[in-house]
Amino acid sequence: MFSGAQVSLYPMSDSFVGVITNAVGALDRHRDSLRIETDDVSTLLVGPPETLFTAMQEMFVAAAASGAHCVLSAAISRGCPGEPDDPICVSAALTSGFSPLDERKAAAIEAVRQSADTRQPAVAQFSLYVMGTDDHMDEIYGCIDFLKQSGVFTGSKHFCTKLGGDAGAIFGALREAFCRFGHPDAHITLDVTVSANSPSLA
Amino acid sequence: MFSGAQVSLYPMSDSFVGVITNAVGALDRHRDSLRIETDDVSTLLVGPPETLFTAMQEMFVAAAASGAHCVLSAAISRGCPGEPDDPICVSAALTSGFSPLDERKAAAIEAVRQSADTRQPAVAQFSLYVMGTDDHMDEIYGCIDFLKQSGVFTGSKHFCTKLGGDAGAIFGALREAFCRFGHPDAHITLDVTVSANSPSLA
Repeated sequence: MFSGAQVSLYPMSDSFVGVITNAVGALDRHRDSLRIETDDVSTLLVGPPETLFTAMQEMFVAAAASGAHCVLSAAISRGCPGEPDDPICVSAALTSGFSPLDERKAAAIEAVRQSADTRQPAVAQFSLYVMGTDDHMDEIYGCIDFLKQSGVFTGSKHFCTKLGGDAGAIFGALREAFCRFGHPDAHITLDVTVSANSPSLA
Repeated sequence: MFSGAQVSLYPMSDSFVGVITNAVGALDRHRDSLRIETDDVSTLLVGPPETLFTAMQEMFVAAAASGAHCVLSAAISRGCPGEPDDPICVSAALTSGFSPLDERKAAAIEAVRQSADTRQPAVAQFSLYVMGTDDHMDEIYGCIDFLKQSGVFTGSKHFCTKLGGDAGAIFGALREAFCRFGHPDAHITLDVTVSANSPSLA
């Protein structure tokens, strides 16, 4: 299994370089458990989902604390057949089997409830893509049903689901969507947008 | 068939509201052929791919002309089984059959060559996702092979392919990837990032 993300941070501010540099610095404590590479478009994170989502949350919260309108955008992937297995990606979250959909939904809801509060409000929207199977919509609808009961669901839009609440619960819901829907060995991706401090919400 | 995109623009500038408002205004000339709805996170565009990619290109070029570091991020989708057919989406680009992969690659390369120049340099990275089939990697590898011959390929990264060149050729390559790979009736999505004026490239 190979899992990781291409993550970009967009601070809508003249001081964007400093905000991004500071937020990427928040990843330093994960350098033993994540491979991290930054270029002019995104930062690659390779590692197990439980660490990936924690790292993205910390990066986002560090940027949002600047007070600027900030967006984190990420393409997150697991099980891509074109990527080699990597020992750094071994994850307890993906080796616990594939229980019936209702059990997975219940476990996901409980995990989001246990998310630690960050005191950073955020909104998000994302899409879950399940590949290599002709029943992908069953898993996608199962995930949407989980989200509706997650406490952070704010609405369905064309092509994606919208979330709102504390950044801790939002990144928790994204992690649960990624880990529990689609077979543990399947090729799964998320297209994620998380936003803070938007003047459109003022 | 239903096709469209959730598109966000991120100008890394204190003047981001004006840059976004101006760029969304560039969509006005497409209001007869696209459904357009903006909220606090993204702008929904619903319509045929040939118009969608032109509209996104114009929006991006309008924002980049501000001189600010700007990124356009989009989740682009066609054939999602959960979306209703819509007459506004009828497209000649998706009703021309499903020829062998080599023919589609050649046609895509030729279409990118014919892209009009915008004089706006850009870099991009994106992922193509093909759902509902167990041979999705054949189409994805076919698309990557097309990109390598497209004139805008700059490299493969984990989870995505990187492009660089004139914004016209880049959005042309994205359109061809979206329209020609995966069956015309399949559920296909792109996760796209296009960037201009990055100080990291200075």
